Amino acid sequence: MTRTAIRGGLVVTAAEETYADVLIEDGRIVALAASDAPSASGSWAVERTIDARGKYVLPGGVDAHTHMEMPFGGTYAADTFETGTRAAAWGGTTTIVDFAIQSRGKALREGLDAWHAKAEGNCAIDYAFHMILSDVNESSLKEMDLLVDEGVTSFKQFMAYPGVFYSDDGQILRAMQRAASNGGLIMMHAENGIAIDVLVEQALAEGRTDPRVHGEVRKTLLEAEATHRAIQLARVAGAPLYVVHVSAEEAVAELAAARHKGLPVFGETCPQYLFLSTDDLDRPDFEGAKYVCSTPLRPREHQAALWKGLRTDELQVVSTDHCPFCFTGQKELGRGDFSKIPNGMPGVENRMDLLHQAVVDGHISRRRWIDIACAAPARMFGLYPKKGTIAPGADADVVVYDPAAEQTLSAETHHMDVDYSAYEGRRIRGRVETVLSRGEVVLDQREFTGRAGHGSYVPRATCQYLG
Amino acid sequence: MTRTAIRGGLVVTAAEETYADVLIEDGRIVALAASDAPSASGSWAVERTIDARGKYVLPGGVDAHTHMEMPFGGTYAADTFETGTRAAAWGGTTTIVDFAIQSRGKALREGLDAWHAKAEGNCAIDYAFHMILSDVNESSLKEMDLLVDEGVTSFKQFMAYPGVFYSDDGQILRAMQRAASNGGLIMMHAENGIAIDVLVEQALAEGRTDPRVHGEVRKTLLEAEATHRAIQLARVAGAPLYVVHVSAEEAVAELAAARHKGLPVFGETCPQYLFLSTDDLDRPDFEGAKYVCSTPLRPREHQAALWKGLRTDELQVVSTDHCPFCFTGQKELGRGDFSKIPNGMPGVENRMDLLHQAVVDGHISRRRWIDIACAAPARMFGLYPKKGTIAPGADADVVVYDPAAEQTLSAETHHMDVDYSAYEGRRIRGRVETVLSRGEVVLDQREFTGRAGHGSYVPRATCQYLG
Amino acid sequence: MTRTAIRGGLVVTAAEETYADVLIEDGRIVALAASDAPSASGSWAVERTIDARGKYVLPGGVDAHTHMEMPFGGTYAADTFETGTRAAAWGGTTTIVDFAIQSRGKALREGLDAWHAKAEGNCAIDYAFHMILSDVNESSLKEMDLLVDEGVTSFKQFMAYPGVFYSDDGQILRAMQRAASNGGLIMMHAENGIAIDVLVEQALAEGRTDPRVHGEVRKTLLEAEATHRAIQLARVAGAPLYVVHVSAEEAVAELAAARHKGLPVFGETCPQYLFLSTDDLDRPDFEGAKYVCSTPLRPREHQAALWKGLRTDELQVVSTDHCPFCFTGQKELGRGDFSKIPNGMPGVENRMDLLHQAVVDGHISRRRWIDIACAAPARMFGLYPKKGTIAPGADADVVVYDPAAEQTLSAETHHMDVDYSAYEGRRIRGRVETVLSRGEVVLDQREFTGRAGHGSYVPRATCQYLG
Amino acid sequence: MTRTAIRGGLVVTAAEETYADVLIEDGRIVALAASDAPSASGSWAVERTIDARGKYVLPGGVDAHTHMEMPFGGTYAADTFETGTRAAAWGGTTTIVDFAIQSRGKALREGLDAWHAKAEGNCAIDYAFHMILSDVNESSLKEMDLLVDEGVTSFKQFMAYPGVFYSDDGQILRAMQRAASNGGLIMMHAENGIAIDVLVEQALAEGRTDPRVHGEVRKTLLEAEATHRAIQLARVAGAPLYVVHVSAEEAVAELAAARHKGLPVFGETCPQYLFLSTDDLDRPDFEGAKYVCSTPLRPREHQAALWKGLRTDELQVVSTDHCPFCFTGQKELGRGDFSKIPNGMPGVENRMDLLHQAVVDGHISRRRWIDIACAAPARMFGLYPKKGTIAPGADADVVVYDPAAEQTLSAETHHMDVDYSAYEGRRIRGRVETVLSRGEVVLDQREFTGRAGHGSYVPRATCQYLG
Repeated sequence: MTRTAIRGGLVVTAAEETYADVLIEDGRIVALAASDAPSASGSWAVERTIDARGKYVLPGGVDAHTHMEMPFGGTYAADTFETGTRAAAWGGTTTIVDFAIQSRGKALREGLDAWHAKAEGNCAIDYAFHMILSDVNESSLKEMDLLVDEGVTSFKQFMAYPGVFYSDDGQILRAMQRAASNGGLIMMHAENGIAIDVLVEQALAEGRTDPRVHGEVRKTLLEAEATHRAIQLARVAGAPLYVVHVSAEEAVAELAAARHKGLPVFGETCPQYLFLSTDDLDRPDFEGAKYVCSTPLRPREHQAALWKGLRTDELQVVSTDHCPFCFTGQKELGRGDFSKIPNGMPGVENRMDLLHQAVVDGHISRRRWIDIACAAPARMFGLYPKKGTIAPGADADVVVYDPAAEQTLSAETHHMDVDYSAYEGRRIRGRVETVLSRGEVVLDQREFTGRAGHGSYVPRATCQYLG
Repeated sequence: MTRTAIRGGLVVTAAEETYADVLIEDGRIVALAASDAPSASGSWAVERTIDARGKYVLPGGVDAHTHMEMPFGGTYAADTFETGTRAAAWGGTTTIVDFAIQSRGKALREGLDAWHAKAEGNCAIDYAFHMILSDVNESSLKEMDLLVDEGVTSFKQFMAYPGVFYSDDGQILRAMQRAASNGGLIMMHAENGIAIDVLVEQALAEGRTDPRVHGEVRKTLLEAEATHRAIQLARVAGAPLYVVHVSAEEAVAELAAARHKGLPVFGETCPQYLFLSTDDLDRPDFEGAKYVCSTPLRPREHQAALWKGLRTDELQVVSTDHCPFCFTGQKELGRGDFSKIPNGMPGVENRMDLLHQAVVDGHISRRRWIDIACAAPARMFGLYPKKGTIAPGADADVVVYDPAAEQTLSAETHHMDVDYSAYEGRRIRGRVETVLSRGEVVLDQREFTGRAGHGSYVPRATCQYLG
Repeated sequence: MTRTAIRGGLVVTAAEETYADVLIEDGRIVALAASDAPSASGSWAVERTIDARGKYVLPGGVDAHTHMEMPFGGTYAADTFETGTRAAAWGGTTTIVDFAIQSRGKALREGLDAWHAKAEGNCAIDYAFHMILSDVNESSLKEMDLLVDEGVTSFKQFMAYPGVFYSDDGQILRAMQRAASNGGLIMMHAENGIAIDVLVEQALAEGRTDPRVHGEVRKTLLEAEATHRAIQLARVAGAPLYVVHVSAEEAVAELAAARHKGLPVFGETCPQYLFLSTDDLDRPDFEGAKYVCSTPLRPREHQAALWKGLRTDELQVVSTDHCPFCFTGQKELGRGDFSKIPNGMPGVENRMDLLHQAVVDGHISRRRWIDIACAAPARMFGLYPKKGTIAPGADADVVVYDPAAEQTLSAETHHMDVDYSAYEGRRIRGRVETVLSRGEVVLDQREFTGRAGHGSYVPRATCQYLG
Repeated sequence: MTRTAIRGGLVVTAAEETYADVLIEDGRIVALAASDAPSASGSWAVERTIDARGKYVLPGGVDAHTHMEMPFGGTYAADTFETGTRAAAWGGTTTIVDFAIQSRGKALREGLDAWHAKAEGNCAIDYAFHMILSDVNESSLKEMDLLVDEGVTSFKQFMAYPGVFYSDDGQILRAMQRAASNGGLIMMHAENGIAIDVLVEQALAEGRTDPRVHGEVRKTLLEAEATHRAIQLARVAGAPLYVVHVSAEEAVAELAAARHKGLPVFGETCPQYLFLSTDDLDRPDFEGAKYVCSTPLRPREHQAALWKGLRTDELQVVSTDHCPFCFTGQKELGRGDFSKIPNGMPGVENRMDLLHQAVVDGHISRRRWIDIACAAPARMFGLYPKKGTIAPGADADVVVYDPAAEQTLSAETHHMDVDYSAYEGRRIRGRVETVLSRGEVVLDQREFTGRAGHGSYVPRATCQYLG
């Protein structure tokens, strides 16, 4: 029995801010005691004490949207589960939910097995899986039930990428109906890909090939349209809905309207939509390619709507959609044809810090930071209170965070296996100091002490915002 | 140093549900420990142990809207601070925020002093004060600053009751501007009283004198109108706004629209609007008079909008607006003229139970119950985390609640000093078993062990939903 | 030179109600004169005088949505151009705009030629054509320009009927873009047919085969969704949009929201949605099949939203979608499988009368009647002021209408070539008495005096609500 | 019997554009005939022929909002009925509806008689009256019925100007109830004057005294608030509502929302809100005072919402609110205190021209121009079709308008009795050439041939948009 105490920090959860000592035993948090009540925690017999005075004590981050080693457009996302989860740990994230992929014509099981094989034994932190549905048919619908039972309780569909991941409205409706009956949650990439592909073709035919055109053809109206459509299909199916990587003000408005009706509709956005914009997509010398992702970056004025949505719970979760491709050799595949640029950006390491900067900047409160980055994703995907909070009984995934430290984000210093940072040179306040994963120190005062294989697969319950 | 442990219960807060032992020392909660981790709590040296196995362990309720001994229409609300706070304790409420009243032409201080005098030494549980502004002028505006500094941080104005509590839009705007600068929160009784009084006069002139006419003349549109107006005035002033006793679907819609814009606008409803309706106002033999309050009870179909609003955080707080008048001798003043019926209903004892029934009925989750009844009112009025939660450092205001017990609400058995129950004969599930106020057991397995004078005045910080 | 005078009637147009004498010369209206100013019209030298005292003098109806002889599901709509236009004349309609159909893989021209061949020499009244786009490709897009130039200025697409008329969102976007450049107007059948087909298949698999299931699977949400999507695609294309046969309140709301934004979005409804409901679809003994059309009949409470939409110009046009199939032999194809029931209802003869009944019932004003039935469809499809009004210079398509007559609608007495009336036994006030088509009397005091071949093809200008 | 023909022009009404000859007899239009059908109009025996080839032939303008000789703030509006109606004629307006004023404590009759006395024998064109209700009580409510019977069918109330014209919500409700029963129409000055006066006082106390502060304190939110409140009170009363001089986008949105619900709510705007802005209020050297009116000019970006509202019938009428005060001696009363600047601007002469310029600029269609300036105000206030259109039977109030002429607006050349033009130096296209009032030429190719006393009082029917 190993016992650790974290003493004197400000424990911040989605709900409370308390000066409390935290007792960890056998990988779990077993007690909290007021720091100023020595009688309560003074008698704890511990092997190790971490001094958190002047620091925050946070639940480890839950990044519910990553794509490690994902195949896309003939190449692979640059981070493996090993490098990606290590970078996550450096950034204060202690759980990822990655996407296993069903290939067209293949079983869900086959895709899930492949992803288990990639991850097992390689992760520095705990991990779970969503399942991408590329091929909805009688057989895959039946498999959904099995996956829910074994802890893969969310399923992603795409209204974009015709011919690749695209599901038509009938396939979406069928999957939603199934989710309504088995407790699963449909996650939607909401862009009208059929219409977008027309605009892509027209743009290329007109010789408009630069990265910024990627943002122009993937119009906000087509994100909003698809968001609206997904909501209506979910209503027909009687199913809940989670819309991934919401980027446009008009899409937030669709979610807000649905939620005002009391519908079980949820939305996620990502740091890139909160901190970057079409100005970045428009960088010269093909550098805009670094900022190509879908949904695309939007004009700067959309950011206010996203922050407002996060404050007012129109949006619940901030994930990264971490899907890094190196500029050299990968992003470059799209020189002369923006549609060939691999879609995706690195970010798993930066999320907690960028959102702390948002606290500093006054966009969100400290507790809301922990909510959207830890508690809400955990609840959304059936991991709470094991993950996402600091409470007796929870997994001891804990971050000691120094709110006063300053750092400069850079590819020089980051730990993601990709040759650029989307936030290169950005100066922010706050830094992860020490990280525990199930009681084990994996980052110790900014020295990595974890190991590939420490991280375990976590089967998930169904969405905890329902019922 | 007295120490108490509450062991084995399910600790429910707005954020968490945890099987945890709770350690109380010197009136405060000092530690929580996982019930299944004996090493954590086993060594606690306590004088008293409360066995909460099979029970909920809840933060004591915070009722942010009571009117003990309030003068109205020539009579007084029937409960004194002594009887009212005792009844509150019976019902699992451990803090009330009552309304001190400025008389027209008098200073705020004079009103506040009077209320302190009524309450001091008489309360079984802790109490705080809001201030009713009846007369906004240069002098009372200046006094607002002083009151905020000493912990009276919220001020109620009335758009109804011309000639009594009524403020015109200019007085409202001035008070809101002041609140914007001193951190106070304006609480609004939002009904267009000027228009309502025309309808009252017309109804009486037509011989329509029954209690149900009270509900007919106080139209939903006139509640919605005033709600909208208060929001616009708050926007002009740059001030936050809290609308009390929201009863109409259309008023909820106004709040929701404002919140969707990201405005700091908040709403409260009360159990009577959630559980009763115009059907009750229409009871024969003048019994409808028991259900006369303002805003009035609404047709049954409004209830769904209120529940939806509570679920989606369009409404944040459920208070009681406890303001009881006996049927005999008080309500009867309005026989033959509904406008003479004293406005108000008893409820301080029933709130926690009725809302638990709402959990049983599926209207809200268990955590949302604690949020709207304990945590949100505490945050709204600057009492958190001293009040409203169970966390290290919090006041040991704790309720041991038996979710499986059944009870029948009745004037026969209630402890409020009023001769009827608005919920007479209603069968509900769940019951308060034991209540601690700052560590002292005031209700012990349904035996009252408290005393007048235990309750202390609690100065409040400003609204914790802002900034 | 033939000259006719219509004297003493109340001339009702979309804009005016005037007691005026009307002078007709060579097929055109050439003068209006105040009936009480004998000097103005007294000197007219005419061959024929029609006495309209006590009657209305109306512009002939314009029915912008008919399907004569249309192939559907292996059979043909029962009315030929000959029988259908004769019935139209009986009902006070003097212009129809029918739909020519492009077959998949064929040219627009081929379809248009086929429809010209069907109509030419057979019509009792004037006619024009819209074009159904079944196959959007480079070639058909180019043909659109040619058709606009020759007077076929509107093009219908279907978001329903996959595999038959269905266009995907890319084809819709392309056609809209073309329309934006050539002045054409896209008419949309807005139902999410892909999702509906899933529900159809599921219903049949569950043994739900009755006609009323047709209404259940074609959900209002799926009409509203498609309406919203069509609007968004039109915004992306910068094109106007006309949504046909709007039946659901939620779809009206989408149109209203778009129009409130100032977008050039228009909507049509039909008498069947205004006067019939799912109660009819649910008639026993398979009689519900008579009421199968798409969009389907809706629950009765949708009617109020449609009337409101017509009053407030959220909807502009009432057409019939006349597409009759006999109960015997045609509708019966769907016994045991509602999806095999030919979609469509008779109505071209009843529209003017039913809408007059709406005037009597207080749903719309007399002028709005003429607007939605005559003027607005004429303007919408580029026929104004030749058609749709009574003004100097207009075609002398005139109806003398007796507002005091009463009649009972019935298959026994109607002139459409179909074995049932959707309004069998309905008693209404008002009746067409005399009808002129380009100055020629085709119905003379309820004796048919027209002839096949009198009706001419009318090339159309582009939509007159734009620019 | 005098007979005049206007030949060869394009007759433009709200509904039609027709090349037609117009026959006038005894002050009325008695016939229209196609210009290209000589047989129809060739035989007309006329004393006078006006050649309108190349010109528009328009119904005379109806300005439903003027204040001739109005007392305000100790001075009088500069135009008398004589000078004001002459200027109106110059500008193509042939009917004004002016506001008679009830003084506090006096009878409606007394005010109406006073206004009749001012106008009678002095007007160049026809005129009618609305009645301003300054004092709603039992007696004035009864008088409303009498006034409706004699043709004063609309009543204005003010939510602004406390102590002067202000009505409280109870007085508004009572007047609306009365209007609901007698067919009258309540016209509302919708600004929250109680709140505005607080802001005025504060601004002055802070030394903010310039004209532009007038615009800052009369906030858009306080116009929108009052608009919303007036709508809700009208709903409670079951009465229609006409909101005068709508200037703010947010107020348009309130009207639009009400109309979408199908409520009988109408809105008017004025040229100053469409063509001027806070930039003008901010002109140096106290020149901003020329632009002081209430509701105030708004920031330029509100104009788009007003034009959109006019196109989509969210707003129905453009009137002038003509209430001119000379800069010298009148506007100057407010030097050093913007609240003392008389509120009002000249405009009765410019309305038709400015709105034609809006046609040229593409904001509205030619027919919509005539609708909002002639037909709609006539219908709104019970003057149609006597006024507002060109049709057999209508009064021969006709304007021959040269759409190709150019002119420069200026105080040098205008005919209003005021020493400045709000549009000084503005170059516009189109000009009134000849004007007939009831068949009499009052402006003949830009020579004034009218006379004081030609204009007659016109009793009005009730609002023709209702029932």
